[in-house]
Amino acid sequence: MKTSIAQVKAIMTADQHESFVTRRIPEVTLEFGGIKGDRHFGITAKADSRQPMYEKGTEILNRRQITIVSEEQLRDIATELGVSEVLPEWLGANLLISGFKDLTTLPMGSRLLFPNGVGLICMGENKPCIHPGEMIQQHYPSEEKVATRFVKAGYKKRGIVCAVECPGHITVNEEVKILINDFSNPMQ
Amino acid sequence: MKTSIAQVKAIMTADQHESFVTRRIPEVTLEFGGIKGDRHFGITAKADSRQPMYEKGTEILNRRQITIVSEEQLRDIATELGVSEVLPEWLGANLLISGFKDLTTLPMGSRLLFPNGVGLICMGENKPCIHPGEMIQQHYPSEEKVATRFVKAGYKKRGIVCAVECPGHITVNEEVKILINDFSNPMQ
Repeated sequence: MKTSIAQVKAIMTADQHESFVTRRIPEVTLEFGGIKGDRHFGITAKADSRQPMYEKGTEILNRRQITIVSEEQLRDIATELGVSEVLPEWLGANLLISGFKDLTTLPMGSRLLFPNGVGLICMGENKPCIHPGEMIQQHYPSEEKVATRFVKAGYKKRGIVCAVECPGHITVNEEVKILINDFSNPMQ
Repeated sequence: MKTSIAQVKAIMTADQHESFVTRRIPEVTLEFGGIKGDRHFGITAKADSRQPMYEKGTEILNRRQITIVSEEQLRDIATELGVSEVLPEWLGANLLISGFKDLTTLPMGSRLLFPNGVGLICMGENKPCIHPGEMIQQHYPSEEKVATRFVKAGYKKRGIVCAVECPGHITVNEEVKILINDFSNPMQ
């Protein structure tokens, strides 16, 4: 099994009223269900337009507890959009990592392991929708059609969603070890 | 996205003392965490030798709530072992389905949807270990080395593990619709 090492550059929580935008915090305790107080916290969540196989509002298992983006891929998105930077907060990310560029295509079932024994399990690619694009647009009012262009610019670059597999405390600047799942001989 | 239809041929629970072997029941309510009373029931579970990235006994997210095997693949395993049949109970399976032969390689994140709105989410391949082989061996005492041969015979044929994504009631002989996850354009 292939492994990789990355670094936690930022930890963020979406605890602002009626906004998916996150704000930076120096450290956090990850619980089963995610980050307490974050809008995505919960063992379960309500199905929305992302899960059309269930009626909207149905209580389903929450696999979108923690969203992670990579510094390198945000830089690529900014370049593609022609803006100076795209902040992870605007995408509602909970973690920003660097040193593992191809984060978005990390296979489901891969593990992200932190020094305290904390583990996240990758639940797959987070597909770009228009809302983060609208947030980027607000910061670059002179740029054209950023909101809609984000969906294409963020293709396979918008990061992943994870569930907390093993709870505990994480801190900015920690190393994270990535165990890359191999479907020919998958982790269990 | 590709879809397929299969049929529920048996529902089983592992509720016998200190045994992973399951027994047939005509219907069951799937809850968040799996089947109440089954040895694998729980939102969380203890890490074991299958999760060497965590210390044994650590409480981790339970992705192995429901195990599913396919009738066609059990038949292939029996042929390979040279025995008349391999029952799903001996493998500790919770569901036996027919009509979807390549169950074991169903991609993670695929959905199995039942008539009542119940949904399971595929958490990947269940890799064969020696214990089900020992159980098969007990039923065929005259066959040689069934226990160890099972690990090879069951390769990519031993079925999948799932988590309950949307709870509810399921019944034997129901149809199950399978939404096959495509990593190039994954379900969310």
